[in-house]
Amino acid sequence: MKPLVSIIMGSTSDLPVMEKTAQVLNDLKIPFEMNALSAHRTPEEVETFAKGASARGLKVIIAAAGMAAHLPGVIASMTSLPVIGVPINASLDGLDSIFSILQMPPGIPVATVGVNAAQNAGILAAQIIGTGNEEIMKEVEKHKAGLKKKIVEANEELKKVKFTYKTN
Amino acid sequence: MKPLVSIIMGSTSDLPVMEKTAQVLNDLKIPFEMNALSAHRTPEEVETFAKGASARGLKVIIAAAGMAAHLPGVIASMTSLPVIGVPINASLDGLDSIFSILQMPPGIPVATVGVNAAQNAGILAAQIIGTGNEEIMKEVEKHKAGLKKKIVEANEELKKVKFTYKTN
Amino acid sequence: MKPLVSIIMGSTSDLPVMEKTAQVLNDLKIPFEMNALSAHRTPEEVETFAKGASARGLKVIIAAAGMAAHLPGVIASMTSLPVIGVPINASLDGLDSIFSILQMPPGIPVATVGVNAAQNAGILAAQIIGTGNEEIMKEVEKHKAGLKKKIVEANEELKKVKFTYKTN
Amino acid sequence: MKPLVSIIMGSTSDLPVMEKTAQVLNDLKIPFEMNALSAHRTPEEVETFAKGASARGLKVIIAAAGMAAHLPGVIASMTSLPVIGVPINASLDGLDSIFSILQMPPGIPVATVGVNAAQNAGILAAQIIGTGNEEIMKEVEKHKAGLKKKIVEANEELKKVKFTYKTN
Amino acid sequence: MKPLVSIIMGSTSDLPVMEKTAQVLNDLKIPFEMNALSAHRTPEEVETFAKGASARGLKVIIAAAGMAAHLPGVIASMTSLPVIGVPINASLDGLDSIFSILQMPPGIPVATVGVNAAQNAGILAAQIIGTGNEEIMKEVEKHKAGLKKKIVEANEELKKVKFTYKTN
Amino acid sequence: MKPLVSIIMGSTSDLPVMEKTAQVLNDLKIPFEMNALSAHRTPEEVETFAKGASARGLKVIIAAAGMAAHLPGVIASMTSLPVIGVPINASLDGLDSIFSILQMPPGIPVATVGVNAAQNAGILAAQIIGTGNEEIMKEVEKHKAGLKKKIVEANEELKKVKFTYKTN
Amino acid sequence: MKPLVSIIMGSTSDLPVMEKTAQVLNDLKIPFEMNALSAHRTPEEVETFAKGASARGLKVIIAAAGMAAHLPGVIASMTSLPVIGVPINASLDGLDSIFSILQMPPGIPVATVGVNAAQNAGILAAQIIGTGNEEIMKEVEKHKAGLKKKIVEANEELKKVKFTYKTN
Amino acid sequence: MKPLVSIIMGSTSDLPVMEKTAQVLNDLKIPFEMNALSAHRTPEEVETFAKGASARGLKVIIAAAGMAAHLPGVIASMTSLPVIGVPINASLDGLDSIFSILQMPPGIPVATVGVNAAQNAGILAAQIIGTGNEEIMKEVEKHKAGLKKKIVEANEELKKVKFTYKTN
Repeated sequence: MKPLVSIIMGSTSDLPVMEKTAQVLNDLKIPFEMNALSAHRTPEEVETFAKGASARGLKVIIAAAGMAAHLPGVIASMTSLPVIGVPINASLDGLDSIFSILQMPPGIPVATVGVNAAQNAGILAAQIIGTGNEEIMKEVEKHKAGLKKKIVEANEELKKVKFTYKTN
Repeated sequence: MKPLVSIIMGSTSDLPVMEKTAQVLNDLKIPFEMNALSAHRTPEEVETFAKGASARGLKVIIAAAGMAAHLPGVIASMTSLPVIGVPINASLDGLDSIFSILQMPPGIPVATVGVNAAQNAGILAAQIIGTGNEEIMKEVEKHKAGLKKKIVEANEELKKVKFTYKTN
Repeated sequence: MKPLVSIIMGSTSDLPVMEKTAQVLNDLKIPFEMNALSAHRTPEEVETFAKGASARGLKVIIAAAGMAAHLPGVIASMTSLPVIGVPINASLDGLDSIFSILQMPPGIPVATVGVNAAQNAGILAAQIIGTGNEEIMKEVEKHKAGLKKKIVEANEELKKVKFTYKTN
Repeated sequence: MKPLVSIIMGSTSDLPVMEKTAQVLNDLKIPFEMNALSAHRTPEEVETFAKGASARGLKVIIAAAGMAAHLPGVIASMTSLPVIGVPINASLDGLDSIFSILQMPPGIPVATVGVNAAQNAGILAAQIIGTGNEEIMKEVEKHKAGLKKKIVEANEELKKVKFTYKTN
Repeated sequence: MKPLVSIIMGSTSDLPVMEKTAQVLNDLKIPFEMNALSAHRTPEEVETFAKGASARGLKVIIAAAGMAAHLPGVIASMTSLPVIGVPINASLDGLDSIFSILQMPPGIPVATVGVNAAQNAGILAAQIIGTGNEEIMKEVEKHKAGLKKKIVEANEELKKVKFTYKTN
Repeated sequence: MKPLVSIIMGSTSDLPVMEKTAQVLNDLKIPFEMNALSAHRTPEEVETFAKGASARGLKVIIAAAGMAAHLPGVIASMTSLPVIGVPINASLDGLDSIFSILQMPPGIPVATVGVNAAQNAGILAAQIIGTGNEEIMKEVEKHKAGLKKKIVEANEELKKVKFTYKTN
Repeated sequence: MKPLVSIIMGSTSDLPVMEKTAQVLNDLKIPFEMNALSAHRTPEEVETFAKGASARGLKVIIAAAGMAAHLPGVIASMTSLPVIGVPINASLDGLDSIFSILQMPPGIPVATVGVNAAQNAGILAAQIIGTGNEEIMKEVEKHKAGLKKKIVEANEELKKVKFTYKTN
Repeated sequence: MKPLVSIIMGSTSDLPVMEKTAQVLNDLKIPFEMNALSAHRTPEEVETFAKGASARGLKVIIAAAGMAAHLPGVIASMTSLPVIGVPINASLDGLDSIFSILQMPPGIPVATVGVNAAQNAGILAAQIIGTGNEEIMKEVEKHKAGLKKKIVEANEELKKVKFTYKTN
């Protein structure tokens, strides 16, 4: 099946974070691909990728990068597909990558998620595709119900705990 | 025509910023609606709005708020539609609203754009709807071409300027 | 005995921090309950909780959350009881949760304490209840005297230490 | 009528901000007093004030200060009454006063509100007193209903606006 | 005369800042050109420019941009010439552009100067070219001597001022 | 009379701020001198000044600078006299100069005061000289009493104000 | 011998940092004492200490505290002796204690050193006392010469290292 | 062979970071030297070094320092050679050294690279020398091609990974 989402990282060192995107897309039954491309070290490959993305049937691009994170913005400048940016915490608590991704100039938005928020990037991609695909929207809704169930169960567990303390 | 995008602001004082979203959606020929709802002052109205959004045919919700900006996240928790968050600079250079919108917990993403980036919120909404609607994707592409044309013209102007300085 | 204080956390991962609130409330002889509820994953449960809190006899709600911490503010929007917010350091040194809790818009205050300041949240709850309950105010005063005693004793210990150094 | 709330500012230059506290307490029918006392310039007066506050019948102290804002914490160290701290933006976007008030050490909490959030300080004081005073709690609830009404009306106004744009 | 330095800005709105670069290059007798090119709106033009820069005889590129400032880094990825980045203060006190330019990944440095430090960008360009061009290095040294002369004169002026105060 | 304090600024543009230091030293009857010297533009003059300071009878040096403020630290490295550093707010809310002055490496302290805190620099100089000069210490104590008197008077004024509000 | 410097910490947990102050004062042959006193938990002891400090023959007070660090400022408000503040890094990278100590209001300076800069606090105390005590000033000068010797030796070591690398 | 680049560190504790500069200069076949000199502890040695640098045939100086990092700026004030500054992360996430190096006043630029970006400092030095030395520029280009090859290979590896997940 042709991928609907492409996950791009600036460096393979981002893989341990970005695997959560792959996992959630898999859970949501959305075909995806995963590549390492660098805005700075392989600019031509990025250009080829970005300009051909729509024609290959991709619907959403998820781009992750740390530090002066240009990858999401550079891809966004070369395609009309929505681009989701994942700031990676590689230095300065991730503030450098947040600002490098979030603060795009007028005309070229990047849909930014939180620092290292790889799982949320996958869910957002599903919600975006879901606007034109009912089956995927249903998967999103099922996933959401699952989140709720987990915290309700956690709460049940919490209620069983006895907070008994000795007086200081 | 039924609106595809709903623009929500936390306060009518955000209107001068958010009118740019309305303008760009109009330019891109996307029907929209605009409302003031507060996560904190009208929580029931927000709930009614968010839970009914999908059934009313909305595809994307754009929510703007400043300070401890809960509106985008609260809406996102009550719908499966993609929610775009616009941090408004009302204090602390907008850092408070950036963090309150961007740093959503796992499971409930908000697609965040830059501080006061109302125009980009509109374009991102169009890109999202465009993933399931070819006509709108074409409008996005036309808009993009226009951006390029403007800066190319600016460059032409710049070339005509003579930078002649007297020696200090 | 019916609880006067309800401790709510956004995630059970906050329990190691928030146990200190339980401990201090226990020391101050204030009955309390403890629950996990998420502003984003279980919004309906939060609403049911917040709207029913006063009628159940609760006097103060302590809500802890990290990242884009909406829980304290969302609860505060649905009750007239005072809400104490505890920013949890889960990312960005806790700055994201500080701003998300502290910078509430006009009309809906959250009484914010320091990052991970679970003990102070419990003491503040006691002080608040103490404004209408003399017995509890006396417990607060006893606790305060204990704090002083500890540092006076620490100082006595310190005085016994001989700071004798060899000349470099 | 004897004051239940005392509003203290570090400097009379904070008066234009803190008048909003006075206004909201007046609206909520809570008797209050207002004084200028400086933790650094009049430490003895601060001590006299703080130690005698409870005996004078005060229930809550609201202390506002900017820069290295020690006033709320110093007062909190000398009384068992709840102290609300209002960080004033006098430099560094108010970050210095936020940290100086919020990050109190274990044992001595200050209930901190947002930068310049004088109105919220007043409402929080009312909520605190309301935990032991039904009449005042009813005033808080009325005030809250008023907030909602204002934004609902703003929304009605917004709906009448025609967002009609010429195509660019 | 063929330009040795190319000044590129992301937007013509940066011109009032970047004119100081032109002025100082003129003072140092270094031929230059000035263009507006956007990493995001005209990526192809940027590529053509960057890849052809060395062959055209350019020695240094000065690129200025604000917000998520990708222009200097993108150019640096496509040329082996040294690239000087000038962060423009367009939002967040310029922190976003500082981080977007400074924090480049290993392999692709950008020589970053201070926020809006257009004059320093020109001097640095001269120093760089001066490493292979004695005449230009002499101009740099003359310029430096001028700086010193100005502050020495300012000091002379200062000495003439009488700081006479009435006793408070 | 020979100066005991030397006020140095990095640029004559700092004069409007630093005049407050001159004023307070004058009030405290401490002879002083005032010069403009730049760590970066006149390094030799700075060296001559710093190395000769003690022999000329100076007791304290007050150095003010903005941005990458090296002046106080550079002077401190060349004299054993105590150096007071005044961070000037010239960019980034003054954070750059705070960090450049405050965070000196082990061995070379600079006694840093707040951003633009020219008056406090003068008082601190007086306190330092006062440790070896009783007359000056008495002036410091008189000045301190004056501060207290002012705020006590302000409080008296405040008490006369009638906070009468119409009910909203 | 009577102490000339008093080292005060807000908490005995600061002792591992502040021992460096004791060490350097010992090296510089300055008699000192060391106490734990809390601005918030033992305000009366702080007052007694501060008001009696000068009469006991103390020349300088060094006060260290973390978080909302009020100790240095509170002491400074109650004595005319110079007070050196040491911000302790206990949270937020120490930014909270920097701002709480550095940003003192006009009239009450605290001579602030860097985060955890306990050694520099001791040297600064010596420099201050040295303004009225030639013997101690000579110790400061000897210490300074020692610093230089250490780095010169380190440089000698560095020169012996052979940086020989295999070509990648 | 005479060195073209001098690597200077403020402290030998910076050596583990700065060895990467030595490694990359070695790879690029550029002769270099390495020294420890402190702006604050050995100011005379710094002056001697900086003023003699050009005459000794050096083309670029790379200076690394942490905290209140004055070394790069002080050197830059005493030579017309281009100075590359490397902010070392020793405290405050490196923000203190970034600001102390980057925010130089008009007239004295320092070419700043990212926090701990020792490798990039070496490459930038090569690019600068390359503007007047074709052989070195060719080495830079070869190095750049190598970077690209590495990420292309990483991408090939990534493609072989099978992201197969069990459904949650």
